[in-house]
Amino acid sequence: MSASELHDNLIHRVNVGDSLTRTAARHPRRTAVVDGARRFTYTEFNAWVNRVANALTARGYARGDALALASGNSAEFLVTYYACAKLGVVCVPVNLGWRADEVAYVLGHSKSRGIVVESQLLEAMSDALGKVPAVTDVIVAPGTGAAAEGGTFEELAEGFPDTEPEHVVGDRDPITYLYTSGTTSFPKGVMGNHTAIYLESTMMALEARFTEEDRFVAMMPMFHTAQLNCHCTAAVMVGAAIHVRRGFDAAGLLEQIERERITQIFGLPMMYQQLLEHPDVATRDLSSLRRALYAMAAMPEAQLRQAIEVFGCEFYLLFGQTEMSPTTNLFRPEHQLSHAGAVGSAVVNVQTAIMDADGSLLPQGEVGEIVYRGPHTMTGYLDDAEATAEAFEHGWFHSGDVGYFDADGILWFSDRRKDVIKTGGENVASMEVEKALFEVGEDIAEAVVVGLPHERWTEAITAVVVPKPGRRIDPEALLAGLRSRIDRYKVPKAVIVAGELPRTSTGKIRKNVVRESFAEHYTGGAG
Amino acid sequence: MSASELHDNLIHRVNVGDSLTRTAARHPRRTAVVDGARRFTYTEFNAWVNRVANALTARGYARGDALALASGNSAEFLVTYYACAKLGVVCVPVNLGWRADEVAYVLGHSKSRGIVVESQLLEAMSDALGKVPAVTDVIVAPGTGAAAEGGTFEELAEGFPDTEPEHVVGDRDPITYLYTSGTTSFPKGVMGNHTAIYLESTMMALEARFTEEDRFVAMMPMFHTAQLNCHCTAAVMVGAAIHVRRGFDAAGLLEQIERERITQIFGLPMMYQQLLEHPDVATRDLSSLRRALYAMAAMPEAQLRQAIEVFGCEFYLLFGQTEMSPTTNLFRPEHQLSHAGAVGSAVVNVQTAIMDADGSLLPQGEVGEIVYRGPHTMTGYLDDAEATAEAFEHGWFHSGDVGYFDADGILWFSDRRKDVIKTGGENVASMEVEKALFEVGEDIAEAVVVGLPHERWTEAITAVVVPKPGRRIDPEALLAGLRSRIDRYKVPKAVIVAGELPRTSTGKIRKNVVRESFAEHYTGGAG
Repeated sequence: MSASELHDNLIHRVNVGDSLTRTAARHPRRTAVVDGARRFTYTEFNAWVNRVANALTARGYARGDALALASGNSAEFLVTYYACAKLGVVCVPVNLGWRADEVAYVLGHSKSRGIVVESQLLEAMSDALGKVPAVTDVIVAPGTGAAAEGGTFEELAEGFPDTEPEHVVGDRDPITYLYTSGTTSFPKGVMGNHTAIYLESTMMALEARFTEEDRFVAMMPMFHTAQLNCHCTAAVMVGAAIHVRRGFDAAGLLEQIERERITQIFGLPMMYQQLLEHPDVATRDLSSLRRALYAMAAMPEAQLRQAIEVFGCEFYLLFGQTEMSPTTNLFRPEHQLSHAGAVGSAVVNVQTAIMDADGSLLPQGEVGEIVYRGPHTMTGYLDDAEATAEAFEHGWFHSGDVGYFDADGILWFSDRRKDVIKTGGENVASMEVEKALFEVGEDIAEAVVVGLPHERWTEAITAVVVPKPGRRIDPEALLAGLRSRIDRYKVPKAVIVAGELPRTSTGKIRKNVVRESFAEHYTGGAG
Repeated sequence: MSASELHDNLIHRVNVGDSLTRTAARHPRRTAVVDGARRFTYTEFNAWVNRVANALTARGYARGDALALASGNSAEFLVTYYACAKLGVVCVPVNLGWRADEVAYVLGHSKSRGIVVESQLLEAMSDALGKVPAVTDVIVAPGTGAAAEGGTFEELAEGFPDTEPEHVVGDRDPITYLYTSGTTSFPKGVMGNHTAIYLESTMMALEARFTEEDRFVAMMPMFHTAQLNCHCTAAVMVGAAIHVRRGFDAAGLLEQIERERITQIFGLPMMYQQLLEHPDVATRDLSSLRRALYAMAAMPEAQLRQAIEVFGCEFYLLFGQTEMSPTTNLFRPEHQLSHAGAVGSAVVNVQTAIMDADGSLLPQGEVGEIVYRGPHTMTGYLDDAEATAEAFEHGWFHSGDVGYFDADGILWFSDRRKDVIKTGGENVASMEVEKALFEVGEDIAEAVVVGLPHERWTEAITAVVVPKPGRRIDPEALLAGLRSRIDRYKVPKAVIVAGELPRTSTGKIRKNVVRESFAEHYTGGAG
């Protein structure tokens, strides 16, 4: 590599690590990260990132190498991520909900050379590490576990200078491999790239009006794209403060909002529900809140109205997926009440369209697969050309979601494509039946509707329901109620009462597991 | 090119034309462009752009070809620009202040295949076109001139479909060659690229809080980067309305602000001065204004205070240059009064630093050359490797400006590097002497300070002043006043009284012309 190649790269490149360098130059004294009692200004945080990056270089890590990261939310998580970004090293976050064989698969598949592990996770990771001898470099980050032997995160950077590491990194070099929680097989490695994450972060800051005066709580898992690439990187882009939390608890969060004058939180609808139900919500001073983001799904209208009233701030639903880095649509404050239940409109960097099975785009009002184009689409799935080609068929990214645009240009989500039930020649959105179930069955705590193999119907619509504690569900009464509410052909052929439903680490019901469990409900094979 | 290469490009690319496509999908019914009595929604404007792009393709234009554009501000200007962007054709705006030989040079140097010319400019362009036979395709846009023979802009697109043109365009493909107004030689072609302009536009929208509710007046020349790439492209990014004006006149602008409820204007300090002095400013309803942008130079503090009071909106100074696409620093509303005279702080995409002559970065407070890094730096100068290498020396873009950061991290501009006068072993900023001149010489209308060749002083500080109409300037009294105000070695060795000063089309005094005119003032050579 010539000096002029490096110089040209340093001048022109799009690099997520550079956004930290620039913010540190522009807002040197502003708070970057607060993690427990530790507080770091942007100068301090950037200097720490540089020391770690220079240490990783000395340890042999270079552009294109993969470094795994198994950690709860922490300052060290963010330091590792930005150090990798500045070097062109690919950060591979480990989902803490994975089984040992999944972790081992990801470490092997990503060709990780090393791993940063929080001390209390060392034991849980040891099974996986035993299966992947190629991961030779284990760096132990501080945590609540026993003091570790060998190299620690503190020792790693000791004695290294905080000068900016200057290495060639390409605009479209991978920044992370984010393995999507596999529901049917081992997870796929979504290759995020610097341009994608950089543009997504700028877009998020623009669309949701982030400023350097903001103070964010980061409580969603950093090993997921939404907390990491959308929320934290956008905060760093503008110079806002990130207040790290290791997870969600209502009382602790409410206390923190008051104490730190938090301006922005980001969580799941059920977290907002728990906050609303917590007694402290009435006594804590929440007046600093300007924005509440939520993800995964639209909130029920009653909950949304209550949340807007109680928190007194703007609500934004982020709709998207890991492959899109992730935000594709924002359900914006101005639409929340007029279009409750919708999932919003496209963001500046994304074109959202509806496609039929043949690859033709559909006009407004028609239901089909939601597809996307835009520069924050993933590069592809790591070492999986077939899945990548399938995802990019017809020149659009296929979301696997089914939905439509209404007359106001607002996107509505109908169902996951694979959850649409094909029954007796009709297509039925499982979500529509689920919504009706909750309306007629007041004793239902949880419910899921799936199609199960059936000789006559191809798929028979089937409801699996979990009663509220101490309540009883009468399947016949439930079906009678449904018949008066939805089209006859949408009414389940059977209601199965269960004790609980299988869920992913983000709380999504694993419908494929439900389908597998009851696969022979109608066909009656030996099981 | 394979279908999958095109598909991959359409999904992932960073393309300025795509930002229009996306805005048209998101805000189909919002106003995009208003030009006189003509109003276009984003659907209509995008459809027009697509028809023109498809027509240009049929005419043989393809990725990498150059198409020149000689036009005042108009809807056709913006249509041509976006049509080129979608095709990967390079748009080459012609500065309407150029002489025929400069136009001919640019057409030849850029290898333009064709040119779009407003009808009233046809005659002015004919000399230049006669010298460049390679420009075979002349497309006449409507204007105030005589009806043209041959292909017109309306005929061009007639019968072509408004389907999205889908062609491979690279992230770093050139989008414009913007020739910088040459002060010493023929202009240099600044190669802007799609990633640079796309990121600059997003940055501008983020930093100055543009929204789809905004209504912009575009009155600065669109053949300059600031009006085109910073203001118009950022408006299109968010879905704001662009109200085209062919130039500045105070009365017309004030009337338009009231009539169209304009939210944003962008002009030069002298334009704001004229607005402030116009009687209509007191009677027009200017309450819709939210933001006033200005460029080129800081406003005098008194003018700025008056402007903020009269217009009742936020003021932003854009500091930068064509090579940086162009904005590098914003002098923000919150600093305007506390740091009057400064030029602001870096924007999110740009790192701004101060460098000494050896290429070392200087600490806060020290004076040196202002240098930049960031993804909206130009690709380079077209076919000028030497000038490009010089501009990018030491891995930073050299602005040619001299300045420093104050203790609050705010950037102050001292002078153009080439205008710093080297006299008797000292470096003197010409601007400091100019500022003092205006303070002591109340009869001065215009003044410029240059260094002229001198046997003893190397360069002798020399003031060239123009008196106000009907006033007289006494050089001796002026020098006496200066001696009591600035360091002795900064006082000019001579004061030359002149009738006028040479200026560029943007109103900058051409100091190099002043230097040439008086080059032998002290050496007394035969002239």
